[in-house]
Amino acid sequence: MSEGLIVVKVGGAEGIDYEAVVEDAAALWEKGQKLILVHGASAETNRVAEALGHPPKFLIHPGGMQSRLTDRKTLEIFNMVYAGKMNKHIVELFQRRGVNAVGLSGLDGRVFEGKRKKAIKYVENGKIKIHRGDYSGSVERINKGLLELLLENGYLPVLTPPAVSHEGEAINTDGDVAAARVAEAFGAGALVYLSNVPGLLANYPDESSLIREIPAAQVEEFMRFAEGRMKKKVLGAAEAIRAGVKRVIFADARVDRPIQRALEGLGTVIH
Amino acid sequence: MSEGLIVVKVGGAEGIDYEAVVEDAAALWEKGQKLILVHGASAETNRVAEALGHPPKFLIHPGGMQSRLTDRKTLEIFNMVYAGKMNKHIVELFQRRGVNAVGLSGLDGRVFEGKRKKAIKYVENGKIKIHRGDYSGSVERINKGLLELLLENGYLPVLTPPAVSHEGEAINTDGDVAAARVAEAFGAGALVYLSNVPGLLANYPDESSLIREIPAAQVEEFMRFAEGRMKKKVLGAAEAIRAGVKRVIFADARVDRPIQRALEGLGTVIH
Repeated sequence: MSEGLIVVKVGGAEGIDYEAVVEDAAALWEKGQKLILVHGASAETNRVAEALGHPPKFLIHPGGMQSRLTDRKTLEIFNMVYAGKMNKHIVELFQRRGVNAVGLSGLDGRVFEGKRKKAIKYVENGKIKIHRGDYSGSVERINKGLLELLLENGYLPVLTPPAVSHEGEAINTDGDVAAARVAEAFGAGALVYLSNVPGLLANYPDESSLIREIPAAQVEEFMRFAEGRMKKKVLGAAEAIRAGVKRVIFADARVDRPIQRALEGLGTVIH
Repeated sequence: MSEGLIVVKVGGAEGIDYEAVVEDAAALWEKGQKLILVHGASAETNRVAEALGHPPKFLIHPGGMQSRLTDRKTLEIFNMVYAGKMNKHIVELFQRRGVNAVGLSGLDGRVFEGKRKKAIKYVENGKIKIHRGDYSGSVERINKGLLELLLENGYLPVLTPPAVSHEGEAINTDGDVAAARVAEAFGAGALVYLSNVPGLLANYPDESSLIREIPAAQVEEFMRFAEGRMKKKVLGAAEAIRAGVKRVIFADARVDRPIQRALEGLGTVIH
């Protein structure tokens, strides 16, 4: 199989089998498939934040989406779990299998660079309010040069938020968007989103109602099936296709060979 | 100034001014001085381990040295603080100053590779006992190629334990030794150890009794002034000189321009 670079984003929710994801990525890598892994760590960040007496808080945006309120203390915990515990755990799983992975946060070499949000609108008691001073923002630019340098020299990049702001600050950022920006920068053959659902479901949570295919041009028609984060993911996927990514696949991370199954089309394929 | 590559190891004890260290490193870097920073995070690891209800334990070795008992849970906390919180904090301080730093643990790209200790002798109630299953070991090999690749492309490497075992496991390792191996691999012009003392003191803790110079061939004569960790550091310094490092300097991290002051000879210089 050769379909250009593959970007795999593996979520940070409960139930993800990281060992299976890494085993599958390592098998592909050893066959010569170039690959970049991007990961999250949200559930574990919530647990560590609770344990450290700084429980997570979320802002509900006017559109219904929510995002982690990221003050300086939260950012430190975020860095500990995303860039420390989870990133190094995944790198270690690769190293045990003989794959020379290099784990980087978006801060390192400015791999994920974006704009820090000056103000975030949120809803509280039915009123729209403004939160300022948050350490968060969205990825606008990828350091493709550094990623190419690693890939050309045989290193598998394992990437994680935080990103870096244009001013050099660490910022909490959406890993799904960061992964899409990476796939777009490379014109990737496939962008695979692995999570704890089999893809986009027509009747959530009925897993037998999996939608198998969405032509990018018709993505709006499928929006009625998507909720919350999935809505954002599907819209982001259509954008990635327009920006030159060949296929975006939403697939299950709770199975054996999750990446190869996704590439075989088991999941929701947007093309 | 050009004296080949400089390796700076900054300790993880209390009282270290990381902002001053990074500011000074950034000033040197901008003048064209190639530099690699290696750091610790021991005091902060102790605090986080306490906060997470898994307080640190130390083994006292028969020679009097002590080392952190590293079970799997401790290793996770170690990764969180060294590779997550501290490494990304230092990388962020560089990015804020416009220096494109890349933070790597020894796991990443097998930058620090060594042998996992099968058994550790320790003393308890006057008896010598054996501890097995620890996640620790010592650095034997550096991935110089990856560090050169980063330096040649304008990235400042910020390195931290853990290391990786030959079998691919994460292992807690001594950052001082790792820094010495890096300096030796490059035949560094200087290896600077910054900590919360001004150098080797003839009458510890009287800071006016600083020993200014030690010829590497006479290092044994100075051993009576060194205690605990400092003894190991001074012996390691003599070894680094024999392995081709031009100068090793123990200097104060609690001052302005700590690296440039050390390079000017303010500290204990072993040559």
